[in-house]
Amino acid sequence: MIKAGIIGSTGYAGQELVRILLRHPETEIIWYGSRSYIDQKYSEVFRNMFQIVDAACMDDNMEELMKKADVVFTATPQGFCAGIVNEEVLEQTKIIDLSADYRIKDVSVYEAWYGIRHASPRFLPEAVYGLCEINREKIRSARLIANPGCYPTCSILSAYPAAKEGLIDMDTLIIDAKSGTSGAGRGAKVANLYCEVNENIKAYGVATHRHTPEIEEQLGYAAGREVRLSFTPHLVPMNRGILVTAYAALNRTAEEEEIREIYEAYYKEEPFVRVLERDVCPETRWVEGSNYVDVNIKVDPRTNRLIMMGSMDNLVKGAAGQAVQNMNLVFGLPEGTGLDAVPMFP
Amino acid sequence: MIKAGIIGSTGYAGQELVRILLRHPETEIIWYGSRSYIDQKYSEVFRNMFQIVDAACMDDNMEELMKKADVVFTATPQGFCAGIVNEEVLEQTKIIDLSADYRIKDVSVYEAWYGIRHASPRFLPEAVYGLCEINREKIRSARLIANPGCYPTCSILSAYPAAKEGLIDMDTLIIDAKSGTSGAGRGAKVANLYCEVNENIKAYGVATHRHTPEIEEQLGYAAGREVRLSFTPHLVPMNRGILVTAYAALNRTAEEEEIREIYEAYYKEEPFVRVLERDVCPETRWVEGSNYVDVNIKVDPRTNRLIMMGSMDNLVKGAAGQAVQNMNLVFGLPEGTGLDAVPMFP
Amino acid sequence: MIKAGIIGSTGYAGQELVRILLRHPETEIIWYGSRSYIDQKYSEVFRNMFQIVDAACMDDNMEELMKKADVVFTATPQGFCAGIVNEEVLEQTKIIDLSADYRIKDVSVYEAWYGIRHASPRFLPEAVYGLCEINREKIRSARLIANPGCYPTCSILSAYPAAKEGLIDMDTLIIDAKSGTSGAGRGAKVANLYCEVNENIKAYGVATHRHTPEIEEQLGYAAGREVRLSFTPHLVPMNRGILVTAYAALNRTAEEEEIREIYEAYYKEEPFVRVLERDVCPETRWVEGSNYVDVNIKVDPRTNRLIMMGSMDNLVKGAAGQAVQNMNLVFGLPEGTGLDAVPMFP
Amino acid sequence: MIKAGIIGSTGYAGQELVRILLRHPETEIIWYGSRSYIDQKYSEVFRNMFQIVDAACMDDNMEELMKKADVVFTATPQGFCAGIVNEEVLEQTKIIDLSADYRIKDVSVYEAWYGIRHASPRFLPEAVYGLCEINREKIRSARLIANPGCYPTCSILSAYPAAKEGLIDMDTLIIDAKSGTSGAGRGAKVANLYCEVNENIKAYGVATHRHTPEIEEQLGYAAGREVRLSFTPHLVPMNRGILVTAYAALNRTAEEEEIREIYEAYYKEEPFVRVLERDVCPETRWVEGSNYVDVNIKVDPRTNRLIMMGSMDNLVKGAAGQAVQNMNLVFGLPEGTGLDAVPMFP
Repeated sequence: MIKAGIIGSTGYAGQELVRILLRHPETEIIWYGSRSYIDQKYSEVFRNMFQIVDAACMDDNMEELMKKADVVFTATPQGFCAGIVNEEVLEQTKIIDLSADYRIKDVSVYEAWYGIRHASPRFLPEAVYGLCEINREKIRSARLIANPGCYPTCSILSAYPAAKEGLIDMDTLIIDAKSGTSGAGRGAKVANLYCEVNENIKAYGVATHRHTPEIEEQLGYAAGREVRLSFTPHLVPMNRGILVTAYAALNRTAEEEEIREIYEAYYKEEPFVRVLERDVCPETRWVEGSNYVDVNIKVDPRTNRLIMMGSMDNLVKGAAGQAVQNMNLVFGLPEGTGLDAVPMFP
Repeated sequence: MIKAGIIGSTGYAGQELVRILLRHPETEIIWYGSRSYIDQKYSEVFRNMFQIVDAACMDDNMEELMKKADVVFTATPQGFCAGIVNEEVLEQTKIIDLSADYRIKDVSVYEAWYGIRHASPRFLPEAVYGLCEINREKIRSARLIANPGCYPTCSILSAYPAAKEGLIDMDTLIIDAKSGTSGAGRGAKVANLYCEVNENIKAYGVATHRHTPEIEEQLGYAAGREVRLSFTPHLVPMNRGILVTAYAALNRTAEEEEIREIYEAYYKEEPFVRVLERDVCPETRWVEGSNYVDVNIKVDPRTNRLIMMGSMDNLVKGAAGQAVQNMNLVFGLPEGTGLDAVPMFP
Repeated sequence: MIKAGIIGSTGYAGQELVRILLRHPETEIIWYGSRSYIDQKYSEVFRNMFQIVDAACMDDNMEELMKKADVVFTATPQGFCAGIVNEEVLEQTKIIDLSADYRIKDVSVYEAWYGIRHASPRFLPEAVYGLCEINREKIRSARLIANPGCYPTCSILSAYPAAKEGLIDMDTLIIDAKSGTSGAGRGAKVANLYCEVNENIKAYGVATHRHTPEIEEQLGYAAGREVRLSFTPHLVPMNRGILVTAYAALNRTAEEEEIREIYEAYYKEEPFVRVLERDVCPETRWVEGSNYVDVNIKVDPRTNRLIMMGSMDNLVKGAAGQAVQNMNLVFGLPEGTGLDAVPMFP
Repeated sequence: MIKAGIIGSTGYAGQELVRILLRHPETEIIWYGSRSYIDQKYSEVFRNMFQIVDAACMDDNMEELMKKADVVFTATPQGFCAGIVNEEVLEQTKIIDLSADYRIKDVSVYEAWYGIRHASPRFLPEAVYGLCEINREKIRSARLIANPGCYPTCSILSAYPAAKEGLIDMDTLIIDAKSGTSGAGRGAKVANLYCEVNENIKAYGVATHRHTPEIEEQLGYAAGREVRLSFTPHLVPMNRGILVTAYAALNRTAEEEEIREIYEAYYKEEPFVRVLERDVCPETRWVEGSNYVDVNIKVDPRTNRLIMMGSMDNLVKGAAGQAVQNMNLVFGLPEGTGLDAVPMFP
């Protein structure tokens, strides 16, 4: 049994990780970390866990944790993980970081967008960007995994084959994304109150959202060149789900079927990417609670643009599920272990 | 492997049954019945099933089905199941009926409340009311199981210990219930459109709802006398979940702890009933996607009333999950097989 | 023009009061009070007011306010209004208090349920309970009006004719109420975050909610005797609206039409109470944004109970609208001035 | 008093028109047309109208209607209005058509996108596109007004100053729009059921939505050249509201403030367009129930793109409110008559 510790287990992503790991056949959670709820029973914070989890929340004692845990998940604010990682830690345990600390290779880009100093940039080269569909082999041997952001996961997987194959003009790429409210976290803010979010939709972080450089970096690797794109997230009155609608000029005229076949070829062996049938648009309801990403494309011959779409559960594939997928790879388990949930509808 | 057929697999309860059975380790679905979608791929009706279910929908051919299936679930309109059950069928397969056809022993009561003639009343004595917590032993040897209604499941389990122990005056019992909209079915009706249900709450079927006699019959068995109660359902703008708030006069003064201990004693061994801690009210969010029923009670010393509360996922414990729980008992499997989902929040 | 000051104008009820008064033909708002947002532009707190309200938020300076304002609305936490009312204030301005400070005549009951000392109990005899349908004449000459609570308004109006006419056994009265989330206020609490409220329903304050004694007192006046009742509020995932479902034993057998006629007679002249037609249940969607209360009753001959139902917008008739209705009476205006909004659907 | 007839008064837009006209000081509704509910009381279809509207629904008898009504609103399916308009009608009454029949000047474009033959193309030259902010003077003298579509209204007003001033490269314009579900109409379809829309977001009509040519035509007039753009609508789980996020390459580098000043200059005198302050994004909650369109822009210097945003209530400014705005102009009333509602929040 893999012994897993979670730092930040009382956020939405942390709790989702608990939910998934509780039914993972090869894992045992040995540490429910939460600074906000130390010594409080975990099931009092999340009452869905009543009679399922008996443990109380614990402070984040890395000294102890790295000795006890085979893997430590950090579902923590930006900067926390960078502050605790060091060689001693990485020799004793694996780190899967759900924050952004190790996602961006260029520390100056990280520091510019996140507005904080990176405490351990020397581990950036070693850290592996944990998008399993692209970095599967590197992940298997990693000690430190940067679990991708929710928007980047959906954005990258929606555009990857087109970028990689040079189908689109990367200078024209625009990503318009929409997320459920769990992505905003569990902090007590007026802006996230029920009556503020319900019956509303808004864009936020326009032209400045921190996931932008992460997407640019990864799609840059795919395209083999630097990428600058527009990324606009929107807040949607629903609990879970991310939808991405991306636009780019086609580099040449192409039939829709031709491009869909390319997408199908790329994702044929992927257990969690479903390329939908012609004219079926991704919808968040069809992936809820699962690790799937549904993608599809549409060619608009009038404008010679490619429209790339993806949907995903932001807490599963966009956070906790992908973290478990990474863990499975690291520990040599079948990649889908514990992740076989059928999407729950309605 | 148990071979399962589902008639009515394209309603919300039918689809939930598919979702649960797909991950049931001892069952294989061999028949996706749906009159409305014959020959259409099941995954085109419910796109969460894309690349998971390959089958197409089939008409309901009982002749063929009873030969192939070890168990047939009927998630069908009232009257359908009564019309297909006969001795030949019951000799060849087990029937778990999610409709109301065999829930009420007195055929005249059934016919009065449902407004249709019962086509096979001779099987009413044999049919077992499939509330596992109460009829577990009878269910194990049953051929024909009446899966309880959603409201009745939650109502009965909330009030059962109090009724059985004679704690409350059954003549004063009032059940005020609230349900998510999946309980209204997937039929295309104006009243169930998004804009009609959203930002609204209403009572319906006041003093006339068909689940009333079902609750009365079962609580009557518990109380050892005939019961007449008030039952009022309400439609709530959410997908899933039922909440029951029930009121009755206490037959004697009693401390809250005393009654909670009685509840705890009754449900101690139950895998799916959770008696909550003092002052914790059941909420539907904590059971969503799971087979749990959360119950709790409150004594109001000012009025000497007992307030009994329960929450549950109407599609799981209130329909498909309970049906699988019944199936497990019938086939000698551990009762919770395939039903170990941790409630999904948020 | 009536000069109106609002203390607590940045809560949901305060903002609704602003919205209504802005279109009131005889009123001018001269004071947007808000301790939390002093000196901040009101339209930055509520951006619906952009280019409509230019004022900034001000601290609550009663010395100045009582001199400038003809009427002061206090949409403030319990205890605040009791702390500022004195003879000097009441000689200079009218007070319409949206908190509970002057709703309950017996100060010991107030202090027991609210857990605070009342700072000015000597004004309790003078204060008028501002339920216009019942206390219209007293309100006209009042200096200090206790604007009724949201749940009490809907509960009392639903049960009043039955209580007054002695139709029901008041010892059996049970009120099961459901409210939208704006009733929980605009404070930043985890429990009121979107993801905590959405897809959930729960009871709260069971047997202990502070609106209980307020309803008991008023229905006690109607019944001519002391009343003890059960009141259970529930939180519903919607912004606005309260629905009340109340149950009581009939003192005698009665036809439904007979009782509806009594209700119609009581409310015939009322501009804001609509007695619905037979078998039409009140729904919150049909009153949203308006000052209406829709009521109806159902006789259940099986249990000889009367089921009384009411729906209302908690922020309008349950708070700001009723406050304006009171103001109109106090200043001799037609009662419906500024309150003629047609309910907005969907 | 203007006598107004409404054909199609029982759809969401029709009902909103009723709601607005009921409080319009210069109008009287004399005809509640509805093929689906002939002879049924209007207030039984929309119970918010109980005790407000006494009339019953009537069939669409143009012969009679044109004689009685000073203005006829057609909130009807595509093709209906084109079928009833003729010279005789236009000599006797004004027509404000909420359908698309007269929005597109080129009949072949209309027929290609809508897939029906236009029954009266000879009136296309005369019809005025009723976007008051742009065609105000023409509207005053029009007999036949094509009330703009919901998406086009918000899209055009968001991009108009930029297009008109030549700030953006029109070949790069991409409009990503999001709408509440009332935009989908009141027809009983499975796809619009509560449980299908709730907790979901999806794109639809990708690269094929009928509002595309309407936006292209109008922005083409502004730009002084033919325009081809990408338009993608999305369905959002909320009742009302449209949000537009539009992207285009800047023709030159420009400071954000410079462009905002251009927008402010364009809309300075407009009663219903609010140019928001720097870094304030439009949100649908701040315009709900009102005739406002909130717009703002953001310059992204990294990509040299202009991001144009707008929010609006699809049933008010996007349909019924704009229709009344048009009516006011036609009849020489102040443009905002009956449209002064403060946005309702929450």
